[in-house]
Order: sequence, then structure tokens, then C-alpha cells
Amino acid sequence: MGANAAYRVIGASLPRPDAAAKSTGEAVFGVDVKLPRMAVGKLLTSPLPHARIRHLDTERARRLRGVYAVVTGADAPPRRFGFIKDQPVLERHKVRCVGDPMAAVAARDEETAEEALELIRVELEELPAVFEAEAALREGAPIIHEELPSYGAVWKVQRWGNVSVHSTIAFGDLERGFAQADVCYEDDFTTQKLHQGYLEPHVVVARVEAGGRVSLWTTTQGAFNVRAQVAELFDLALSQVRVLSPYTGGSFGGKLHPTLEPLAVLLAQASRRPVRLMLTPDEELTQARPRPSSHIRLKTGLRRDGAILARQATLTFDTGAYSGATGPTANTVGARSALGPYQVPNLRVETFSVYTNNRNCGSYRASGASHATFASESQLDLIARRLGIDPLELRLRNGVVNGVPSPTGSTYTGIDLGAMLRTAAERIRWRAPRAPYEGVGIACAEWGSAGRGSAAVVKLNEDGSVGVLSGAIDLGTGSETIFAQIAAEELGIDPRRVVVSWKDTDAAPFDAGSVGTRVTYNMGDAVRRAAIDCREKARALAARLLEADLEDVLYEDGRAYVRGAAQQAKTLAELSAAAHNRPGGGPLVGAGGLVSPAVPFDRQRTSGLMWGSQAAVSIAAQAARVRVDPETGAVAVLEVVAAHDVGKAINPNATEGQIEGGISQAVGYACTEQLVYERGVLQNGGWHEYKVLTSLDMPRVQPILVEGFLSDGPYGVKGIAEAAVIPTAPAVVNAVADAIGVHLRDLPLTPERVLRALRETRRAEPPG
Amino acid sequence: MGANAAYRVIGASLPRPDAAAKSTGEAVFGVDVKLPRMAVGKLLTSPLPHARIRHLDTERARRLRGVYAVVTGADAPPRRFGFIKDQPVLERHKVRCVGDPMAAVAARDEETAEEALELIRVELEELPAVFEAEAALREGAPIIHEELPSYGAVWKVQRWGNVSVHSTIAFGDLERGFAQADVCYEDDFTTQKLHQGYLEPHVVVARVEAGGRVSLWTTTQGAFNVRAQVAELFDLALSQVRVLSPYTGGSFGGKLHPTLEPLAVLLAQASRRPVRLMLTPDEELTQARPRPSSHIRLKTGLRRDGAILARQATLTFDTGAYSGATGPTANTVGARSALGPYQVPNLRVETFSVYTNNRNCGSYRASGASHATFASESQLDLIARRLGIDPLELRLRNGVVNGVPSPTGSTYTGIDLGAMLRTAAERIRWRAPRAPYEGVGIACAEWGSAGRGSAAVVKLNEDGSVGVLSGAIDLGTGSETIFAQIAAEELGIDPRRVVVSWKDTDAAPFDAGSVGTRVTYNMGDAVRRAAIDCREKARALAARLLEADLEDVLYEDGRAYVRGAAQQAKTLAELSAAAHNRPGGGPLVGAGGLVSPAVPFDRQRTSGLMWGSQAAVSIAAQAARVRVDPETGAVAVLEVVAAHDVGKAINPNATEGQIEGGISQAVGYACTEQLVYERGVLQNGGWHEYKVLTSLDMPRVQPILVEGFLSDGPYGVKGIAEAAVIPTAPAVVNAVADAIGVHLRDLPLTPERVLRALRETRRAEPPG
Repeated sequence: MGANAAYRVIGASLPRPDAAAKSTGEAVFGVDVKLPRMAVGKLLTSPLPHARIRHLDTERARRLRGVYAVVTGADAPPRRFGFIKDQPVLERHKVRCVGDPMAAVAARDEETAEEALELIRVELEELPAVFEAEAALREGAPIIHEELPSYGAVWKVQRWGNVSVHSTIAFGDLERGFAQADVCYEDDFTTQKLHQGYLEPHVVVARVEAGGRVSLWTTTQGAFNVRAQVAELFDLALSQVRVLSPYTGGSFGGKLHPTLEPLAVLLAQASRRPVRLMLTPDEELTQARPRPSSHIRLKTGLRRDGAILARQATLTFDTGAYSGATGPTANTVGARSALGPYQVPNLRVETFSVYTNNRNCGSYRASGASHATFASESQLDLIARRLGIDPLELRLRNGVVNGVPSPTGSTYTGIDLGAMLRTAAERIRWRAPRAPYEGVGIACAEWGSAGRGSAAVVKLNEDGSVGVLSGAIDLGTGSETIFAQIAAEELGIDPRRVVVSWKDTDAAPFDAGSVGTRVTYNMGDAVRRAAIDCREKARALAARLLEADLEDVLYEDGRAYVRGAAQQAKTLAELSAAAHNRPGGGPLVGAGGLVSPAVPFDRQRTSGLMWGSQAAVSIAAQAARVRVDPETGAVAVLEVVAAHDVGKAINPNATEGQIEGGISQAVGYACTEQLVYERGVLQNGGWHEYKVLTSLDMPRVQPILVEGFLSDGPYGVKGIAEAAVIPTAPAVVNAVADAIGVHLRDLPLTPERVLRALRETRRAEPPG
Repeated sequence: MGANAAYRVIGASLPRPDAAAKSTGEAVFGVDVKLPRMAVGKLLTSPLPHARIRHLDTERARRLRGVYAVVTGADAPPRRFGFIKDQPVLERHKVRCVGDPMAAVAARDEETAEEALELIRVELEELPAVFEAEAALREGAPIIHEELPSYGAVWKVQRWGNVSVHSTIAFGDLERGFAQADVCYEDDFTTQKLHQGYLEPHVVVARVEAGGRVSLWTTTQGAFNVRAQVAELFDLALSQVRVLSPYTGGSFGGKLHPTLEPLAVLLAQASRRPVRLMLTPDEELTQARPRPSSHIRLKTGLRRDGAILARQATLTFDTGAYSGATGPTANTVGARSALGPYQVPNLRVETFSVYTNNRNCGSYRASGASHATFASESQLDLIARRLGIDPLELRLRNGVVNGVPSPTGSTYTGIDLGAMLRTAAERIRWRAPRAPYEGVGIACAEWGSAGRGSAAVVKLNEDGSVGVLSGAIDLGTGSETIFAQIAAEELGIDPRRVVVSWKDTDAAPFDAGSVGTRVTYNMGDAVRRAAIDCREKARALAARLLEADLEDVLYEDGRAYVRGAAQQAKTLAELSAAAHNRPGGGPLVGAGGLVSPAVPFDRQRTSGLMWGSQAAVSIAAQAARVRVDPETGAVAVLEVVAAHDVGKAINPNATEGQIEGGISQAVGYACTEQLVYERGVLQNGGWHEYKVLTSLDMPRVQPILVEGFLSDGPYGVKGIAEAAVIPTAPAVVNAVADAIGVHLRDLPLTPERVLRALRETRRAEPPG
């Protein structure tokens, strides 16, 4: 499983250049951006989950000294934003969830802004509301978006009632499959709403120049996505919107889409001042976009020997008042993940994103896959127990192998699920005896990198050091270290002589965003191509300087020379100096870009909205060991073994860091974290009540980087970030079932739920 | 004289996109940059013009609460900076002029920093000082830079005593030329020290990250020059230094070189905080780098019919304590301009930049040429009067024509000096009778654009709008409007859909600086090449989409189509959308760069330091009309006709603006502005005492753009900025001589000097 090529820098665990600035507090984040004349923006949000705005009187607020602008739905552009274009910048006629903005003010300081909000008089007429996705699907349920066309204007998919997005995957003959099965099990699973837990709250500063040009300093995963949506909302050319991204303090899907940006632009236009909008850490819990909750029903038919013959899956996501990114991504990825890396001849998956009057949701790592895989891998263990088959064996028996088709019709290649399962099981000591209330569990997952285009520029400085211009935002993953390694590898220089530029959409070529575990696979390749373009220009210059034919000039270790005359080599520094100074030359600048090969969905198998694409599919197997406290019901996750097919690890430390971080989040998902709502109102609206996992709760993590199954990406890389998150929760839940003999089907595994389960167990038989 | 090609956007007087932001005050300048934890830096400067630093005790200053760092020469890197590498960041052992920094502090606020400065105890031992360049050249004069090697390490030229730079141009046989002459005149001229008069004082914010990387926000003409010099001083790779340039409020040569930047870096390193150093407007007069004063002696031999047979010129520049950019540029350009656009068979020019204990000087528009041309064009009028020849006729008789060599050995091409002289004379009504105390004068000049390399990137956004990435700083000239026009021309789109990026050396490819009237000629060509590269990539994509051979695909007006099938054209927006989304494609990014063709100096004719190169030589003829108040001696410049060979005006309004601005500065040079020193101490250190020209003093300007003599630059452009400044002062001085019958040889023409001259005239004969 070793790499198939000898590299100089690729594969080295280099430290991150930004580590020092971040640890010393020197790094500049969005909150540090302060512009002259900058106003403070604040939002007036709805206290009701569903209501008609009868009257909004802003007159007194406008007259308050120090108030620069008050805007309402009447001032906002009529267009909507989000994947589904269902979200207004400011709604004019009604509000759809608690926290929905009704008006916004820009004022000289926070106090004045708060005072202005209090002076705005609102008359709301409460409307019937619905808070459960299933209830929202029922006939006669209150309609959240009566104004939306029944066919999505953008995605050309049918939409009805409160269904925001509907997708299906189907092949084989489901009825026949179930009829042929010896056993058939139907199980229900639910997952909770979660905050992404990034350290840096949302913050944006918007400035509108007199000519109408908009600049935004914002914390985002996709500067070009923000640019595109703001440009569309405000009817501007893309060249009229500039998005700048300071350091970003985590994101995990929560900053994938515009949030405060359109409101900040509206306030900046109205006040003719730069305006900052930001959330406090506690507002993050009520005003940001949590992972949608879900209800997943799986029906699986098998032969008694464990071979899966048919599966039916229905996934219902509560997307809240607006679809955000949840609709297309959770629906598509959830549908794709409802089976997992297993073979089945007959499948039908149906997924619904459903509007409710809950807080509108967003993405959070492996949107859809985190939901579906929890259910699917949980049911495999339930079935194994029912059939008396070892869960590991059941997985080995049904696991995909190279050459078989995926649910959406692509073909698995370059994987070895069996080897990974066995490695994970061995490391967790699968067959070793367990102490009382200890258990082990295993789960698999797959993930592919998202496609779309990216481009980069690589330029040589006069001294041969290098600048990489990329629009991809390093969310804290170390992607810029990776880019520096890639440029250094291709140019044969020390990666410390490479700097990756700040993010500015005016300067950088397009990037499709740091989303979908695509950065190294996609932008990494753009950087590689740009570096090669730059190197080829240097080689061509060397040929001129050395008076040789281009094909006789070799480039190696940062030096160009004529074949057989390595002593007369020109270093990259010499070549670059010459390029900057010799008439007829010119500074060496390379460009590279690509749109990653799409892996299309087989339209014979899919219908409804199937969004995106996936490439460089990577398989993971994780095994967890847990201990349950029988007195308190507390679950301690002791250890997680994480075997991941990464193709090639460009920076193994960074890859392992991704795995550790992902597991930390997934353990929180499995055990402690949840947003609890009551009629749309958050009940645990503080970080002391929202139990994010701390370092003290971290299990021991054994990352296993499986290299050698190379993808078509740069150096054969496969994405890791989201892959690390998916299998942990089901592995933990399966381990808890192993420990206490009862399988919990609702996340998180709170002590209350575990205690209740333990009570059931005790009524049956003692564990161990 | 019309353009030779039909353009869509080139030649249109488009408004500047930055005009609104600048006029409303929204534009962010260096002074607006505020970083978290930023400290205020202040300098302790020498009160004496020349002194040994006996002792520097910073202990009490360091202990003051709120002081973050105190640095002295002991903390500074040993390397020196500037063209000649003669300037220390902080001198350890001696100071060479009043205002020379001895120590610097970083503190929490201005008051604390000032207090800390007062707590530093300095013991200085005064050394003998010298304040006149000629005196500094005499044997036994105090040596300012005893530490410098007698051979300049960088430029490999001999240096001795207080001579900083020495250059010569010589050809023919000077003695024989003078022997053959019927008449021979020797005249002396002096010019004063001047401030560049930009509105924005120097300001820099330096930040040093924990990893050592340096970021600088600074007001400069050359971000890459600052980067290179800071990197060299502090021993960093170029990739370890980032220079960002907000809007710049004028510069005119005064921000050509690092000034406060190295000190700010030193303070930021020592204090581990971002540090801001800035000058107040009044400090600008004492702490910035004025134009050097000069003494010019010309000896010219002629036949009685006016044909020039020989010229000897000696130019002595007082460069002050350090050479800055004065040495190489003033020396070289001064030497080249000591003859002007005239023919002579025998020439010897010798130029000296001389160290004195005056404030160290810098560049100010057409450094050297502004000095030499004043002298040369003044002497032509003196000679014409002496010989009884019309000054216009004398110029026409001796003027260069195509095919003759320049003093440095290049050949004049594409000029028509005679036509320009006649046009200027006609417009100023050369032969019309003048009112008493009114006079007209004429003067010529030539200027070439500086070479060196530049590169740019042009990228297409998803909607076909365009980003231009250029490292060239728009000093207020409108260069970014020009770049947008160039990109729009080549891509066939609306220039309002083009944005030129902010300046960041990490992102932008190399640019040699907004110096030497080179921006449009040089960077404009880089932008043109990058746009063409981008267009060719779009055309290649169109060929794939239209399934046609590349050579059959035409590109016109922002559309690509197969020859004969213009109806099935793909717009640039369509092509770009496809590039961003079609697998196998990739965002369209073009790169372009060049090192402008050098016009080498004939080494048979030149010796000593001859720096730079010039290309795209442009000829100018300006004529001025003045009125002198016989009671007060005040000179009113009524009108200036300015005929300039611009090759092709890309934005005629901007070109005329350059001419008007240059004339305004040159009238100040001629009539009112001067920095008056007494033993190295500025005597008129406030803007009320330093009489910068105001809008009320502006003459009527008639710019005449002579187009059609195309250069090898983009669209045939020739630089205009500095060309506009050079001939004005001698035209004004010649006009004053015409008005009062006495030729003044010392600038500026203060009322006192004019009155004294009038008294001489009255002793002779009444004017008119």
C-alpha cells in the first residue's frame, strides 16, 4: 500500500506556516477587520415561528441619533438566494421561523443599534405552524412557502406542499427482492439538529463604493459562491463584487452559503457606510444554520446467510424555514449513502427535504451521509444480532468490490473494503473478551470529492521563491501547506520558499469552494498544473539561455540543464532573475485549472434532484471501543481505530489531524450534542447547555492511512475531511449496543436514553 | 497624425472607476489601515547635521509604561539600502544630517511614544559639516561616508571623497569643436530643493508574524522594490515579505524608494506587534526626500549662424546625506538631458552626485532632466539673444531629426521636433506683439519610458466579466482605467466589466514600479499580452465547443464564431460559463509579461554609472506666456501650450490630465517653491511657508496630443507623465526674460530675484 512514486516534498509532514500566527493570536480574522466610518449592524428577528407581518413602523428608529439606516423587506431586492433560491434577504410579508429577520439597522455603535431595534414597532399575526417534517408532509399542514413555484426555477425539479427537494434512487425490483428474502427488517432512526461548533462566529463587513461596487470581508468556505450570490441578488456583474477572506476559524459546512452577507450589503447600500454584522457565540446557536434533523426508515430483506437482497430507504430531513444547502446536498448525498459500500440487487431510496417552522438548516460535514450512514450501519448491526452473524462478517459478506456498480451507476475501482475492515477490527481487538459494560463496534463509509472547476496561478519571484495564487480558503485544514508542498514538488524547491496568497476574488481565479472534501483533489491539481506551466516556461527560458533545443533541457531539483551537462545547470533563481531582467523575457507566471471529471448519475436509476457529482471515491472503516457507566448512563468512547483510503497523503500529519478532528465531532454527534427546540424555540441556547465535545472527552484515535489506491487527482490523492466523520457515530452506537445489549436508534446517546435502555436490558438479562 | 487602427475602447476618455470613492472620501488610504494591537512608532532624529553618536541611553524609555520597543543602531541589520546601498536602517556611530534617525520607539499611543523619545539620552559629538556640493568636492572637506568602499559594491563604479555617483557622456573632440566655433558662451545655472507636493504623507504599517514573515501596508510607487529591499535588509526570501498598497495619494518620485518601511519592520520585530510609522504633513518637509538642488555649468560653442559645434556640461547634484534614487537617476538622466533634442558633433557631459550634510534627497519627476533641461533650454535663449537669432529659429536649426544619434548612441526615429515647435509657437502667438511686461518663451524636452519587466494576469469570471491582476500601483494617474481599457479592447467587452485588483505582492506578478513614466508602456503591454492569452484560450475552447478547427474560429467584439457562421457565435460569457463547468475545461486565466526592449548606452560614449535605459522616446515642445508685475516682481504664468508626442493616447482625458498636472508642478518649480536650508536646518518648514502652486495660480493650459508616431509599446503609446514636467520651467524662464529683458539663471523666480533683475533692466533700457 505504499506510494508508487518517489517525491521530494509530497508525503512529508511539514508544519503549517500559519501555525505560529494562529497560536500567538497574531492572525487576523474577520472580527479584526475595521474600516473607517464603519457602522454596526443589528437584526430585528421574529419571536414567532410563523406569522404574517401586518405592519412594520421604523420611523422612530430612523429618527434616533446615531442611526444610519433602517431597512425592511420593502428595501430588499426581490430575488431570493440559496441553492433553491427560497430565502429572501429580508422578507416583506411574513416570517417563517423564530429568528427570521424582519428589519435591520446600521448605527454608530452596538447600544444605539439595540436601542433602534427596540423602537421598531411590529405587528405580527401569528399563523399556524408546523415543527415536524412528517407533520409538514401531511395534507392540510400549514404551507411555509406558498410563494414558491411548484417547479424549482433553478433546479427544474418538482416541489409540492412543504417538500423542498425530493430525490430518488431505484433499481432492480424491490417487491421481488423482498419476496425472495428469508427475513425482512424495518427499523426507524432519528438524528438530531447540531451546531457545527466552529470557534469563529459569523462575521461580515460590507462596503459599497459610490460607484456601486461591493466589497465583503467575510468568514466563508466559498468566496466565489458568496460573490456569485451577492452579485445575482443585487444585479451586479461578478467584477463588481469583491470578496475577501481573512483567516477562517473553522466552518464544517456552516459557512458554505451566504448568511449575513446580503443583509450587510443592503445596510451598507442604505447607510452609505461600511457595515459590520456579526453573531455572538450564543447567537450562533440560534441564528446560524444547524445540521438538519432527520428521520430515516430502512427496510432490508436478506437471505438467512446474511446476503442483502433488497433495501428500501426513506429519509426525511427537516430543513426548517429555508433549504440552505440542505436540500440538494443532504438529499443527494443521503440518498447515495442509504446503502453504504455494500451490494444489493434491488434498491429504492426516497429522500425529502421538508420545510417546517424550525430554524432553517445548513450543512455540517458529510451532509446526508452522516445521517444515512448512521442508520444503515446501525441496522446492519441490528440485523447481524438478529441473524446471529458477526457484524464484521455481515459487512465482509455484502461489501462492495472493484467492478461492481454504485447505487447511482458508477463503478467501484481501486478499493479494498475487506482489507480495511479486517485492519480496523484487528486493531480494536474485535475478538478479544470485553470487560463488563465495554463494547466494540465497527462501521464503514464511503465518500467522494466534489467536482467543479478551480484554477490557480503560480509565479516566480525575482529570487526564485514562489507565490501561489489560489482562491481556495484554508478553513484550518492546512490546505495552504499542501499547496506549498505541491508547488515546491513540481518546481523542485524548498516549500518554505513558497507563499500562498491571501484570498481575494478580484485577484484569484475561480475556486468552487472549500466544500465537499474537494480542496486538495481539485484545487491541489490546479496548483500542480500552474506550477508545471511555470516550470515549463522556466525550462523554455533555460533552453534559450543555454542555447539548446527544448527537448534536450531537463529540469530536476530546481535546476535546468542540457542533457549530459548537469554542471552547467541554471538554478530556478538564476532563471527567474534572467526572466525579470533580460529584454525579450518577462517574469515567469504559470496558470492552471480544471473542472474535475464528473461521475454522472445514471438517470435510469435516479430521479428528482440529484446534485453534484463525486469522484475519487474513498472507503473508510472505523472501529470504536466504548465503556458505559451503568449508574449514570454516560458513554465514554475509549478508542477509535480509523482506517481510511487516502490514495496518497501529501502531508500525513495534516491527514491524521483531519481524521482526529472528524472523529471528535462525530463523537459529539453520537453522544452529547443536540439543539433542543420547543415549538421552534431553542431550549438550550448557550454553549454550557450545548454539550460540544471537549479535549477531555476525546478517545484515543489510531488513524490508519491506507495509501496506494491512487485516484485521478494530483499524486493520486483522495479527500479525507468528511470521510473521517461519517463512520464514527454508527461505530460508537454499535459499540454501545455491544456493551449493553440494546441498540439505540436515536441520536445522541444521552445518559437518559442509555439509562432507559439499560433498564430494558436488566429486565431481560445482564450484559457481558 | 491620427491613429493607424480602429479601436473600440482604446482612445476613449472613460471616467475612472475610482473617482467616486476618492471624491466621497470612501477610498481607503494607508492612514486608514489599522491592525489589532497596532503600536505607534516614532523616531528620534538628529538635531545636528553631522555628529558622532557618543552614547545612547534608552533604559528609561524602555521602562516607561506603554512602551513596547526601543531600537537603536545596535539592533538594526548591518546591511544598507538605497540604489547605492549607502543608507543604514538606523546608524550606530554617526548621523549625517539633521533629521537622521538615531533611535525609534513603538508605544501604545502617540503621547507615550513622544514621552519615550524625550527619555532617551543622547550624547553627540558634533563633526565638521559641509552644505554645498562644490565645497564637499574640495580637498579636505569633511567626509560624509568614510565607511563606503571606494568602488560601489553594487554598481561597480568608482566613488571617491564625497562623490556618490559620477557619470560622463563624451564624443567628438571637444577642444577642436570649441576652436572651430565663432562664439563660445559659458553660463551657470542653479536649481533649488523641492518637495514633491503629494497630498498623502508617508505612512507604513509593518507586521511581522511569529514565523518571521513580514507584511507591509505602505504608500509606495514600487511595491516590489520595497519588497526586494526589505527582504535584502532583513535577509528574507522574497516570498517572506508581503507588500500591500492601498490607494496612493500622489507620489511623483518621492515614494520611489523605501523610506520608513525598514524602520517599521525593525520596530515590529522588536515589539512583536504591528507598528505604524507616519509623517505629519509638516514632517514631510523635513523628513521626506526632496529633489536635489543642482549647479549646472554649460559651455557652448557655435558658428555665428547658430549651429552648435560643441558643448561641455558639468552638473553637480547635492544629494544630501544619502544618495536615495538621486545618484543613478539624476546623474544618468541629467547627463542625457544636458544637450536636449539637438545635434552637436562634440560633447562632454560630466555629472556628480555629491554627499553633503543636507537632508538626503530623492526623486521628483524627471529627476536630472528637470535640472538639465532648465539649464540647456535657458542657455539656448541666452545664446539666441546674444546672437540676435530668434530662439525658435535657433531650436529649429539645431533640432534633432529622424536618423541622427542621441548623446548615448541610440538613434532618433519617429519624431518631428520641427512640427511640434512650430505648433507650440503658433498657438502661443509667438510673433504677435506683447503688452509691456508680458513675454513668451519656448522650450523643448525629450523623455523615454523606463524598461525592466512586468507581468499581469487576466482572468475571466463565470459571467465573462474580467479581473486584471497587476502589481502596478495607480498613483492617481488613472493607470488602472487604462488597464481596464486594454483588457476590454482585447477581449471585446465593456470596460465597466473589468476590475483591476488591489495591490498585493503575494498575489500579483512582478512589476518594476510606477516610476520613470513606464506604467502604460510597460505594464500596459503586460496586461495586453495577458488579455490576448486569455482570449486565445477562450477561442480554443470555442473551437472545441463549436467542433471547428482553431484556425477557422474568429474572435470579434466579445464573440467567437466559425468563419461564415457568425450567427452561431459563442459570447465570452457563454465560453467562460462553459469553462467553469465543463469537465475537461477549467477557468480561463491568461498570463503575460515582458521586459521592455532596452536601448543600450553606447559604452564608447559613456563612462561611470549610466543607469537604466529608455525606450519609446517622446519629444515635447512647450511655450509659455507670462506677465511680470513690475512693482512686486511677481510672475504670473498666463498660458502654457504643451505639444507632446504621445504615440497613441489610450485615454485622452487622462493624458491631458497628466499634462496639466505636470505643468502645475513645473510652474511651482519655476516660480514659487523651494526648501530653504541654513546649515542643514530647514527654514521654511511649514506648508504656508513652502509655496506650493495652488489652483488659483494655474495658467491656462492647451494640451496638444500629437498622435501617430507610434512606439513599440502597446498600441504605439509613449509615456507622458514626466515628459510634461520638463520643458515648462525653461519656457517660463525664457518668457520672463522676454518680458523683462533679463535672463534669470537661478530657480525659483522669486519676486525678490525678479525685482532685482528688473532694477538691472531699468538701469539699461525699458522693456517692450
